[in-house]
Amino acid sequence: MRTRAAVLWEARTDWKVETIDLDPPRAGEVLVRIVAAGMCHSEDHHATGDVPFTAPMIGGHEGAGVVEETGPGVTSVAPGDHVVFSSLPSCGRCPSCSVGRHNLCDLVMHIGAGRQLSDHTARHHLGGEDLAINCFLGAFAEHTVVNEMSLIKVDSSLPLEKLCVLSCGVPTGWGSAVYAGEAKLGDDVAVVGVGGLGSAAVQGARNAGARRIFAIDPVEWKREKALGFGATHTAAGVAEAFDVIQDVTWGRMCDVVVLTMGVGRGGLMADVMRLAAKRGRVVVTNIHPADEIDVRLSMNDLIQMEKRIVGAIFGSVNARRDIPALIESYRDGRLDLDGMITREYPLDEINQGYRDLRAGRNIRGVLRMG
Amino acid sequence: MRTRAAVLWEARTDWKVETIDLDPPRAGEVLVRIVAAGMCHSEDHHATGDVPFTAPMIGGHEGAGVVEETGPGVTSVAPGDHVVFSSLPSCGRCPSCSVGRHNLCDLVMHIGAGRQLSDHTARHHLGGEDLAINCFLGAFAEHTVVNEMSLIKVDSSLPLEKLCVLSCGVPTGWGSAVYAGEAKLGDDVAVVGVGGLGSAAVQGARNAGARRIFAIDPVEWKREKALGFGATHTAAGVAEAFDVIQDVTWGRMCDVVVLTMGVGRGGLMADVMRLAAKRGRVVVTNIHPADEIDVRLSMNDLIQMEKRIVGAIFGSVNARRDIPALIESYRDGRLDLDGMITREYPLDEINQGYRDLRAGRNIRGVLRMG
Repeated sequence: MRTRAAVLWEARTDWKVETIDLDPPRAGEVLVRIVAAGMCHSEDHHATGDVPFTAPMIGGHEGAGVVEETGPGVTSVAPGDHVVFSSLPSCGRCPSCSVGRHNLCDLVMHIGAGRQLSDHTARHHLGGEDLAINCFLGAFAEHTVVNEMSLIKVDSSLPLEKLCVLSCGVPTGWGSAVYAGEAKLGDDVAVVGVGGLGSAAVQGARNAGARRIFAIDPVEWKREKALGFGATHTAAGVAEAFDVIQDVTWGRMCDVVVLTMGVGRGGLMADVMRLAAKRGRVVVTNIHPADEIDVRLSMNDLIQMEKRIVGAIFGSVNARRDIPALIESYRDGRLDLDGMITREYPLDEINQGYRDLRAGRNIRGVLRMG
Repeated sequence: MRTRAAVLWEARTDWKVETIDLDPPRAGEVLVRIVAAGMCHSEDHHATGDVPFTAPMIGGHEGAGVVEETGPGVTSVAPGDHVVFSSLPSCGRCPSCSVGRHNLCDLVMHIGAGRQLSDHTARHHLGGEDLAINCFLGAFAEHTVVNEMSLIKVDSSLPLEKLCVLSCGVPTGWGSAVYAGEAKLGDDVAVVGVGGLGSAAVQGARNAGARRIFAIDPVEWKREKALGFGATHTAAGVAEAFDVIQDVTWGRMCDVVVLTMGVGRGGLMADVMRLAAKRGRVVVTNIHPADEIDVRLSMNDLIQMEKRIVGAIFGSVNARRDIPALIESYRDGRLDLDGMITREYPLDEINQGYRDLRAGRNIRGVLRMG
């Protein structure tokens, strides 16, 4: 079939909306009509050149839609089912999945190739050329073909244009606070960068019973927004935050520090570590430039205060448990998705959406298809 | 009273055995006749200038002895009791102690001053000058006065000249593997540096049920010794270890990497992190030069593989639980202390002991008093 998709032809260019050829689903695969797709910062790391990618690539790893057709052997979904994409697929059987760490599934090894999970070939083509798809998905499109291992079936009574951000940003932020960071009752938590991920981290910390939540961001209206999501204090930068936290916590500092900046910087680690208490967990969620190797860090402070630097991908969540659980939290009012989705754009306005993201005008923008 | 003690007058000099004046114990304090003291690498960090200290200082933070006299209000020990020093005191009541993290007791804040816990004054003097004591102890002496919060009462049927290394090195290494590193059944574990701490880490990993234990050390006889403690493979350096581990684990690498080198180096972190598997814990136990701030490290690898850098002081152990538990393990043969204690020295030969340590001739040397 033919459908429309936003393609990145090379780094440091705009997205181009193209009409592409889409093959039918093969064994284990599913044709999905996409209703909405979240505009995560990760795609912008490709666009800016921070993170290499296989070009040309259909972007999009946050999305929700309706199953239109299933290939042979698909058992977990059927036509008409509502689904949310998981930004990382999981097989359920590899060493990581077998202990519940679906975010570390061995299938992800070939994610950079941008082809199908099953046989590493492409279903997406343009003028005879194969197109890569981001995170085995390609959600910036009206339709896509993906493996069922990337799909989470969801209750059809809820709005897909809100649920789409559960593919990545919301679980990543939420999980960074509560799983990777282990925020719990009475903890003090700092969140550095309160965009899409950070706003979800603030909400995760609040739900876990954090005592104080420090939202740190240079953009004033994002700090205001964070107060609405449950932050108790704000600061415009890490140095200012150090003073605020030291004052408010009587010098004990934070049990959890979640790093959800637009781009991480190794040179900032020493300053960020100072926000952490004895035994504090500094959760690194934001992407750093791929070739960065120089970090400023006091190893002795890390040792003597028993601090921990915790790498987290997809918030250490298990999509099969946590996406449904977060949907329930959205339904009963403990998770505010509506407040996180700042603006909607038609597919053709994707570049405006990313300009707004770079300008700090969105917590999360969403593309609405069709 | 008068007693004898090894004093470090300034960095980069030898220890001097002096006859000193020792005050009687005040409230909460205890006079201990020391039977034996372990010669930990930490004192050598003072002697070499890596770690600053208050001079002049009586060294020694591993020791075991017999209570001779108690000051007013002491309730936990009585004259004649056998005791092992804990290298870090614990009050049992501060925020860290209250959740079982006695190794992070707030009392330790003033450790650098080298005075008594209770009132920050000195009981040790020489020619009218106050002497500092390392870790509130000063175990390189025939007698000392310490706070009861630094003492663990032990069964008097066991040899104090073996138990003395339970003050620091053995719990620190053991705990780095099993508490900080969370080594468990089937894990692959690498230990970088198999001196006193590393040898205990190997034993901790073995007891936890580790599948393979890689002992990494440039000194051949220490690698041989490590095989006796339970290591399954050895390598002379980190680069060689990478090849061995990659081969043996089919590329999965190690669940736990324990860093117990003589001196840690930030420039080595990137190489060490490569030994860790997805979700691997890299436990930093060895001391780094105090002012080191430059570290080589791939943050993206940390994030994408969900690796963790875990600072650990005193092996994250709880001395009140773990020193008695390790004694039981020694009694029933699961912990080999005898094999770790390489040589004994009289107090007057302390400098020979540290020369042997620097030359790689000792796993652990012990000073025998009297």
